[in-house]
Amino acid sequence: MLLALSTWPEIEAFLQRSKTVIVPIGSNEQHGPTGLLGTDWLCPEIIAHEASKRSDEVLVAPTFNVGMAQHHLAFPGTIFLRPSTFMAAIGDWTRSLGAHGFEKIYFLNGHGGNVATIEAAFSEIYAEYSFRKERCPFAMKLKNWWDLDGVNALAMRQFPVGHGSHATPSEIAVTQWGYPDSIKTAEYEPRIAPTGPIREALDFRARYADGRMGSDPALATPEKGGELVKQAVVSLIKDLAAFAGEARV
Amino acid sequence: MLLALSTWPEIEAFLQRSKTVIVPIGSNEQHGPTGLLGTDWLCPEIIAHEASKRSDEVLVAPTFNVGMAQHHLAFPGTIFLRPSTFMAAIGDWTRSLGAHGFEKIYFLNGHGGNVATIEAAFSEIYAEYSFRKERCPFAMKLKNWWDLDGVNALAMRQFPVGHGSHATPSEIAVTQWGYPDSIKTAEYEPRIAPTGPIREALDFRARYADGRMGSDPALATPEKGGELVKQAVVSLIKDLAAFAGEARV
Amino acid sequence: MLLALSTWPEIEAFLQRSKTVIVPIGSNEQHGPTGLLGTDWLCPEIIAHEASKRSDEVLVAPTFNVGMAQHHLAFPGTIFLRPSTFMAAIGDWTRSLGAHGFEKIYFLNGHGGNVATIEAAFSEIYAEYSFRKERCPFAMKLKNWWDLDGVNALAMRQFPVGHGSHATPSEIAVTQWGYPDSIKTAEYEPRIAPTGPIREALDFRARYADGRMGSDPALATPEKGGELVKQAVVSLIKDLAAFAGEARV
Amino acid sequence: MLLALSTWPEIEAFLQRSKTVIVPIGSNEQHGPTGLLGTDWLCPEIIAHEASKRSDEVLVAPTFNVGMAQHHLAFPGTIFLRPSTFMAAIGDWTRSLGAHGFEKIYFLNGHGGNVATIEAAFSEIYAEYSFRKERCPFAMKLKNWWDLDGVNALAMRQFPVGHGSHATPSEIAVTQWGYPDSIKTAEYEPRIAPTGPIREALDFRARYADGRMGSDPALATPEKGGELVKQAVVSLIKDLAAFAGEARV
Amino acid sequence: MLLALSTWPEIEAFLQRSKTVIVPIGSNEQHGPTGLLGTDWLCPEIIAHEASKRSDEVLVAPTFNVGMAQHHLAFPGTIFLRPSTFMAAIGDWTRSLGAHGFEKIYFLNGHGGNVATIEAAFSEIYAEYSFRKERCPFAMKLKNWWDLDGVNALAMRQFPVGHGSHATPSEIAVTQWGYPDSIKTAEYEPRIAPTGPIREALDFRARYADGRMGSDPALATPEKGGELVKQAVVSLIKDLAAFAGEARV
Amino acid sequence: MLLALSTWPEIEAFLQRSKTVIVPIGSNEQHGPTGLLGTDWLCPEIIAHEASKRSDEVLVAPTFNVGMAQHHLAFPGTIFLRPSTFMAAIGDWTRSLGAHGFEKIYFLNGHGGNVATIEAAFSEIYAEYSFRKERCPFAMKLKNWWDLDGVNALAMRQFPVGHGSHATPSEIAVTQWGYPDSIKTAEYEPRIAPTGPIREALDFRARYADGRMGSDPALATPEKGGELVKQAVVSLIKDLAAFAGEARV
Repeated sequence: MLLALSTWPEIEAFLQRSKTVIVPIGSNEQHGPTGLLGTDWLCPEIIAHEASKRSDEVLVAPTFNVGMAQHHLAFPGTIFLRPSTFMAAIGDWTRSLGAHGFEKIYFLNGHGGNVATIEAAFSEIYAEYSFRKERCPFAMKLKNWWDLDGVNALAMRQFPVGHGSHATPSEIAVTQWGYPDSIKTAEYEPRIAPTGPIREALDFRARYADGRMGSDPALATPEKGGELVKQAVVSLIKDLAAFAGEARV
Repeated sequence: MLLALSTWPEIEAFLQRSKTVIVPIGSNEQHGPTGLLGTDWLCPEIIAHEASKRSDEVLVAPTFNVGMAQHHLAFPGTIFLRPSTFMAAIGDWTRSLGAHGFEKIYFLNGHGGNVATIEAAFSEIYAEYSFRKERCPFAMKLKNWWDLDGVNALAMRQFPVGHGSHATPSEIAVTQWGYPDSIKTAEYEPRIAPTGPIREALDFRARYADGRMGSDPALATPEKGGELVKQAVVSLIKDLAAFAGEARV
Repeated sequence: MLLALSTWPEIEAFLQRSKTVIVPIGSNEQHGPTGLLGTDWLCPEIIAHEASKRSDEVLVAPTFNVGMAQHHLAFPGTIFLRPSTFMAAIGDWTRSLGAHGFEKIYFLNGHGGNVATIEAAFSEIYAEYSFRKERCPFAMKLKNWWDLDGVNALAMRQFPVGHGSHATPSEIAVTQWGYPDSIKTAEYEPRIAPTGPIREALDFRARYADGRMGSDPALATPEKGGELVKQAVVSLIKDLAAFAGEARV
Repeated sequence: MLLALSTWPEIEAFLQRSKTVIVPIGSNEQHGPTGLLGTDWLCPEIIAHEASKRSDEVLVAPTFNVGMAQHHLAFPGTIFLRPSTFMAAIGDWTRSLGAHGFEKIYFLNGHGGNVATIEAAFSEIYAEYSFRKERCPFAMKLKNWWDLDGVNALAMRQFPVGHGSHATPSEIAVTQWGYPDSIKTAEYEPRIAPTGPIREALDFRARYADGRMGSDPALATPEKGGELVKQAVVSLIKDLAAFAGEARV
Repeated sequence: MLLALSTWPEIEAFLQRSKTVIVPIGSNEQHGPTGLLGTDWLCPEIIAHEASKRSDEVLVAPTFNVGMAQHHLAFPGTIFLRPSTFMAAIGDWTRSLGAHGFEKIYFLNGHGGNVATIEAAFSEIYAEYSFRKERCPFAMKLKNWWDLDGVNALAMRQFPVGHGSHATPSEIAVTQWGYPDSIKTAEYEPRIAPTGPIREALDFRARYADGRMGSDPALATPEKGGELVKQAVVSLIKDLAAFAGEARV
Repeated sequence: MLLALSTWPEIEAFLQRSKTVIVPIGSNEQHGPTGLLGTDWLCPEIIAHEASKRSDEVLVAPTFNVGMAQHHLAFPGTIFLRPSTFMAAIGDWTRSLGAHGFEKIYFLNGHGGNVATIEAAFSEIYAEYSFRKERCPFAMKLKNWWDLDGVNALAMRQFPVGHGSHATPSEIAVTQWGYPDSIKTAEYEPRIAPTGPIREALDFRARYADGRMGSDPALATPEKGGELVKQAVVSLIKDLAAFAGEARV
C-alpha cells in the first residue's frame, strides 16, 4: 500500500490494524559515468514498493529523495541537504507520522552517506522526550537495503571483485532492473575505481575522477538487480514484521 | 529529461545548452475522502514529466514531495515540514542546483499552502547575496500549475460550480488521469464542502469534517484531467522558455 | 488605546472586555526619490492610531517597523530582517500577546514584501500546536491596509494611471498626510517607473534606478492621503470587529 | 535627522559627511502600576530624537522597540524577543546598516535586561569576521541612556531614595516629559518596592507584586524628566562625536 | 565531590541531601606571552575542586572549558563558541542537570567575555518557562571567581598597579599555583599593556600586540595565586550555601 | 604538549613544525553502578595525554567533555548536548583550530553514541566549502580509542566474556588505571547486563535497570587498564603520524 496513492480514510483504516510504516530514504547524487543520479533513492523505493505489492501489511510513505551528499556536489546533478537541514526535515516527517499514531517508523535507506545524519536525527527527536521525561510514542529504525538479511552476501557472490562502495554494481543493477529503459554504458578507466577518504566536494572530485569509489559498474545487469530485489523484499517483509511485533518495555 | 534517471555526464552536457531546470514541488496531505494523499506533488510531477517528453529542453529534477501542510495534520497520512524546515530545505536544493551552473530554477508548485513559504525561502536565499553585495548567479521562479496560461480558465469551464480550494475536482482529475488505477469514490455530504479560514490542525478538522474546502470532487474525471494536463504542458513549455530566455540586467 | 502608552493594569482591564489587538507591521526601506524610508511602517501606524482614537475597542501594539526588504538593500537607509529572523520575531511577539490572553491578533501590514514571510510565520506558530495536537488559543490575521474595504478602489480612482507597486502615490500620500513637515519633491525620470521581477538587491537597483516600481509619486497629495486614511480607518474598525466576533469552532 | 522620515538620496548624502548612526533600542514591558509599557523604548527614542534636533550630525534609525523581557511576561502588555531571536534581529539591523557604509553603529539602550543579549549579539556579528579572518567594516557600541555622562548622577540627586532598578522615577519622569498626556497615578503599596533576583516570569510576579523593583515612581515629575533629557542629550552628542571620531587601528 | 569521578548512584544519593551543583565555566584563549591558553577555565576549576575537598556539600560538574572568545582568535590556540552556539550548549547542560532534580545551578565563571552570553543563555532558558506560564524548576546563578567575596579586594592589594583586564597577574597567579610545572616567563614590552575596546579578532591583535590588556603578568607568583585560591574557596562555599538555602517564592 | 597548558607563542611555534592536533572527545554520562560519569571523556583524555608525554609531535587540545547521551538522561549525573547543539559546538571548535592553520584535526573519541553526530558535524563543516566551491583547508578524522590498532583485540583477549557495549570492563579499567583513587565496587545483578536497542531515556532505563549494556564491569582492573592505555598510546602516535603525513590531493 502506497501512502501517496491512498486517501486519508484508507490510512485511518490501516492504522486500525498496523502502526508501522516504511519511509524509503536516499540521495540524489552522481553515481559515476553510468549510474543514475537517483540511484540511492530509487533502490529503496523499488524494494519497498515491491514489498508493498507482496504484503498488505507494508505501507510505504513517499520517498525522501534527497539526503546528505555534500561530497558529490562537484559532479553535476547532485542535490543535497546539509546535515542540520536533513535532521530538521527527518524530524518533521517523523513527528507528522507519529502524530497519526504510527508507532514504528522504518527508514529503508539507500545511501551510506545518510547513515550518520539519520541516526543523529533520531537522537535529536528522542532527546525532546528525554528532556521532558516522557516516553516517545514511536520507535524509529534505520536499515540500509544492502544490510537486509542475505542481500550483501548475495552481492558479494554476484560481484566478488569490483563491488566497491560508491556506484556499486549492486545498486546499479537494482536500478537497471527497475528502470530498464534508462540503462547507460561507458568505458571505465580504470576498470576498478580507486578508494580513499571522503572530504569536501572538490577534494572528492580530485580523488575520484569519474565519481566511482572502488567499483566496477560494468558488472551490473538487470537480472542481477532482480535477484537482489527479490532477496531484499523477502527480508524486508520479515524485518518489518519483527520491528512491528516488538513490544514496548 | 529526468534528472534522476540521468547520469552526471548527461547533466554536464545538458548544461552546455541550457541553464534551466524544473523542480516539481508539492505536499503530501489529505485531500478529502477520495483525493490521494500525494495529489499536490503528483500533479506538478505528472505535468512536468509530460513536458519533458515533449521537449528536450525540459529537465525535471526529482519531486520535492513534502511541503507546508500543518493544517492538515489531524487527517491521517499528512506529512509536512514546518516553514523554517521547508525554507532550509528549499535553500539547500537551490544552492545545489546553483552550484552546477543552473541559472534559472523553476519551481512548479502543486500546493497553495506552499506559496508563502517558498517565496520566503527565495527571499532568504537572495538575502545572502544582498548582504554580501553580490549578484545572485541564479534566478528562482515559483509557478502554481493551475496558474499556467489557460489552465485555471479551463478548470472554471470544466467545473463552474464546486471547484473550491482544497481537494478540488481539477487536481483530483489530474491524478485520475495520471494514476487511473487509484481512482477512489465516496459519498460526499454535503455535496459541496464549506469554506473558511485556515488555522492549526484541530481547528481545520473541526471546520472541514472530511477535509475538503469548497469543493465537489465527484466532478472529477480522468478525461478532464487529461485536458488539464495537455493545457498545462503546452503553457509550461512556453513559460519555461520565456524564463530561460530572460536576460540578466 | 495605544499599548505602549498604557500601563499593565490598563491592559489587564482591557482584556476583561476585549481579546483583540492590532499590530501595525511594515518595513523600513527606500521608497524612491521622495518616499520616506519609513513609509511602509508609518502607513499602518497612522491608520491604526487614527482608528484607536475613534474607538475604545481598538488597542494598538507598538509598530513592528522592520520587515522583509532584502531587495531594497542597495539603496541607503534600508534595514531588513531576513525571513528566518522575521519569522522568529513575529513568533515571539505573537506568543507574548497570546500569553496575556489575546485571542485575536491582527497584523495591519504596510509592505507587500512582508506578506509571504508573515504568512509563513503564522504557519510556523500554528504548526507547534498541530504537532502537539492542541488547539491554538489565538487566531492571527494579516491584512494589508490597502486591502481594507474600499481603500484600493479609492486609490485606483485617485491614481488611475501611475499607481504602480512600490513607492506608490497612495502610500506616499498617506505619509504626507501624517507627516506634512516631511514632504519631499524631486524630478522623476521617467515619470512612471518601470516594472519587472524582484530578485536580490543589486539586481533590483539595476532594474529600478531610483527605487520606484511602476509608480508616479508626484501624484501624491496630503489631501488624497487624508481620504485614504479616512476610508481605511472606517474599514479597519469594521474588519477588526468582525474578526473579534468570530466564534471558535 | 530621522532616518525613517528621510529618503534614500538624503541618507546617501548624509553618508558623504558621516558614517555614524544611532539606533534607539529598548523593550516593551510592564513598568509598574503607573509606568508606560513603552517606557524603555520611549526613553532612548525621546533622547535621541531631541539630540537629532540639536545637531545635524545625529542620524537616528527607527526605534528597536521590543527587547529581552521574558521575566515581565506575567504582566499584561509585555512583548519580548527571546535572546536568540533578539540576537538574530540585531544582527540583521546591523548588517543592513553596515551594508550602506555606516562604520559606527551606536545603540542607545533603554532597558537593563537588554544589555547581555545586545553584547552577545555584537560578539556574534564580530565572530563572523573573526572566523573569516577579515576586518569588520563597522564598530558597534552599546550605551544605556542613564550611563551617559552626568545622567545617573543627576538621577541620584533627584531621587536619593527610592530610585530602584525597575519602574524607576527617572525613566518614568522622562516619559512624563515626553508624553505629558499619558501621566498615570496610583497608590503604591509599599511605597518603595522590594528588590531581589530575576528569574522566569511567574517567579518575578510572585516577588514583585505590582511589577516595580526597588523604586518609588511617585517621585517622578515631568520637570525632572526634562532635566534628565537635557543632560542626556548634551552627553549623547558628545559621546557620539567621540565614537565617530575614533580612528581605525 | 567531583561529578565526573562519581557514579550515578552516588549522584542519586547526593541529590537526597542537596540540590545544588557548581559548573566551572571559562574559555580557552590566549593569555599573553606567558599566560596559559587554559587560564580562564583552569581558574574556576582549581577553585571549585579545592572547595569540593573542603566540603561534602560541594558537587562540581565537569568544566565547561570553551567559551566566547571571538576577539582572541587571531592568537594561536584560541578555541571559542560563537554566542548562539554557547547559549545552546549552556542550555543543554542546564536542562540535563535540571532533569536530575538539581534546583540551584551555579556557574563559577573565569572569563569576563563569557558574562553577557551566559546571562543571555539563562534568559533563553527561563523564557521557555515564561512562554509556557510555568515555574522553572531550577534557578541559575553566574558568579565570576574574582567577584567572590574578598577576592578582587585581595587582588587589588596584591597588584595595585598593572592588574589590567586580560592576562591579569591574579589569574596567572592562580594557574601558577595550580600548575607550578607550567610557569612561563617572558620579557614584556611595554611593561603594562595598553587598554581599549574589544571588537573582532584582527582589530584586537592590532591593538594588543602580545595579547595582554592593561596588565603586567610579571607580577604573578604562585604564592599570590595560593592566597587568591584560599580566599576564593572560603567565599565560594559561603556563597554556594546562601544560594542553596534560598527559598522558592 | 597540552594546548591548555601552553601559551600562544608556544602554539605559534608548534605550528611551524606540525599542523596536527588531537581533540579528546567524549561524554559525561552514567556508566552503571561503578563506572565513573566521566568515563567516556576521561578515557580519550588519559590516552591522549599519555601520548603527548611520549612524543613532542602530539599536541592535545582541551577535552570536549560532553557529547550525545540523551538516552542516559534518566540516570543522575548525565549531561548531554542534543545533536544539533553538539554539531554547532564541534563546528566552532574546528573552525577555531582551522583558523590557526591546523590542517589535520583528529578527534579521539570515547563514546559510541557520539559517532553519528561527530560525522554529521564533519559533513556540515565540509558542506560549507562544497557549497562555496572551495577546498577545505583542513581535514578532520574521527577515531574511537578502542578502534586504535590492537586495542579492541586486546580487550577481547582480556574480557572474552562480558565485555558488552556500555560500561564495559575495558573502559572502566582505563579509568581505574588513570584514577586509582576513584575505583568503585558493587554487586552486579545480573552479572552480565542485558542488551537491546537504544531509544529515549525512559525506555533506556526501563530496559537497562542499572545502566549497563551487555557488560560485566567487575572484570576491570587497573592493570588491564594500563595495558590498554599502553597499546592505545603506541597506536595513536602511529595513526596520528599517518594522518599528519597524508598529502593533499
